[in-house]
Amino acid sequence: MFPYIFRYEISPHISVYLECNGVLHSSRSSFQKIEVVESLDFGRMLILDGVINLTERDESVYHEMLVHVPLFSHPDPLKILIVGGGDGGTAREVLKHEGIDRIQQVEIDREVIAVSKKYFPSLGLALDHPKVNVLVMDAIQYVREIEETFDIILVDSTDPVIGQSEGLFSVPFYRDCLNALTEQGILAAQVGDISFETDLVSAVFNKLKEVFPVVRVYLAPIPSYTLVPYSFAFCSKTIHPEMGLARLRRIGMSFQTRYYNPQIHQGAFALPEHLRKEFDK
Amino acid sequence: MFPYIFRYEISPHISVYLECNGVLHSSRSSFQKIEVVESLDFGRMLILDGVINLTERDESVYHEMLVHVPLFSHPDPLKILIVGGGDGGTAREVLKHEGIDRIQQVEIDREVIAVSKKYFPSLGLALDHPKVNVLVMDAIQYVREIEETFDIILVDSTDPVIGQSEGLFSVPFYRDCLNALTEQGILAAQVGDISFETDLVSAVFNKLKEVFPVVRVYLAPIPSYTLVPYSFAFCSKTIHPEMGLARLRRIGMSFQTRYYNPQIHQGAFALPEHLRKEFDK
Repeated sequence: MFPYIFRYEISPHISVYLECNGVLHSSRSSFQKIEVVESLDFGRMLILDGVINLTERDESVYHEMLVHVPLFSHPDPLKILIVGGGDGGTAREVLKHEGIDRIQQVEIDREVIAVSKKYFPSLGLALDHPKVNVLVMDAIQYVREIEETFDIILVDSTDPVIGQSEGLFSVPFYRDCLNALTEQGILAAQVGDISFETDLVSAVFNKLKEVFPVVRVYLAPIPSYTLVPYSFAFCSKTIHPEMGLARLRRIGMSFQTRYYNPQIHQGAFALPEHLRKEFDK
Repeated sequence: MFPYIFRYEISPHISVYLECNGVLHSSRSSFQKIEVVESLDFGRMLILDGVINLTERDESVYHEMLVHVPLFSHPDPLKILIVGGGDGGTAREVLKHEGIDRIQQVEIDREVIAVSKKYFPSLGLALDHPKVNVLVMDAIQYVREIEETFDIILVDSTDPVIGQSEGLFSVPFYRDCLNALTEQGILAAQVGDISFETDLVSAVFNKLKEVFPVVRVYLAPIPSYTLVPYSFAFCSKTIHPEMGLARLRRIGMSFQTRYYNPQIHQGAFALPEHLRKEFDK
């Protein structure tokens, strides 16, 4: 391995430079370039098409917030659909909820799964759990064609600016997801940097609002993605994120987390005043 | 002006690079090097001894959180002491609370005040307000010797690692502050990066806990300081930050903010689970 500096852009005028020990893996799948890089402060990192997809340091923030916010908001989540999420981190967090029946995972890139199982086994091996059914195909086609419904849909994709994920941020895809949700169903999705990519994030939320009766923004700091709290979408037909809080406080959490807790669940929906005016209309 | 790249360190292995248009001011006072730099994405920046002290983009987050969290937690804040804060941003936010009688500001470096009035007039000119009394002296000596008491003390200093501020993060200083607070008094202070400088921040909070009966951590994202939410301390003899919330929700805010609102006031005290275990013991 050769030491080097990995650089990621926050904006055209701001970059972060990370000192790294070297590259553990580099390959090109049918869909993207896949690299695994060892960094000093963020630990091992999965890089897709040059963009950090996850790091050992902060993947727990991302996966816990994508999963536990919707799952603890739902009164009884049984069937879960994960769109993307080939690294396995989202499935790992869903599996902490012992009450769930089944996880249907739809990932387009078989090689991401293989690389994660090898280099991030604490994430990737979750996909071998008997409750998880992994389908390697395009999730856009999958949700268009399925007849069954889910309690929770988790959109764990790459960013909307990156090629094959664009369709996962479109109104037709969101409509298919709405149709695939039960009456109390919830969709959660990672969206983007609300401060340095406001227009992009705003466009995604406007599309979600065309489709879902309830659309809420929530935030969590993921330093390997950007300098400011990163945004997620909470969407449903009727359920609000506050609804699960009382129950959660009563019964408590039956498993360990590194980032998520009931106070964080509530606090994540507190938007800065200038964003509240724009996004919580 | 010559375009250049300003670099700041998040850790020994992580740096942020900002594209800049050039340097507007550079001087050396008796205490520190003072620079004003024009950056593309953060706007104008005040740099003290090479460290970003404030930027136009996110100074409102810092100043609003340092000021409004304690002031809205107190039932009737009248007399305010600002330690440091020579740029004037803290005084500007305090002045939005119409009920206050007087601001006593103690700043050690006369030149910071002059530079701010010239290059950051929307902050610096607050110091010319008739309710503000600016004293140019060492605040450590000031709080040691004063006999009067304050409802709120705001410690708006440079970081503890930087020379002349070290004494502002010491037990003797905190004891003098406690003695200078009324029974319902509150001290708020900027502390540091709880994630990349955990040991330093932990040490400061341990000192505060030696002195104050109530010590709470609260967080806000200030991207020009670091990659993750930055920490502040809320300290008092009896008052908790939740106490002002009901009143604030009832009466509402009589002025505009960019970042702070009641939801943020509450959410800022939600600590990630791994930090809650360490800091909210």
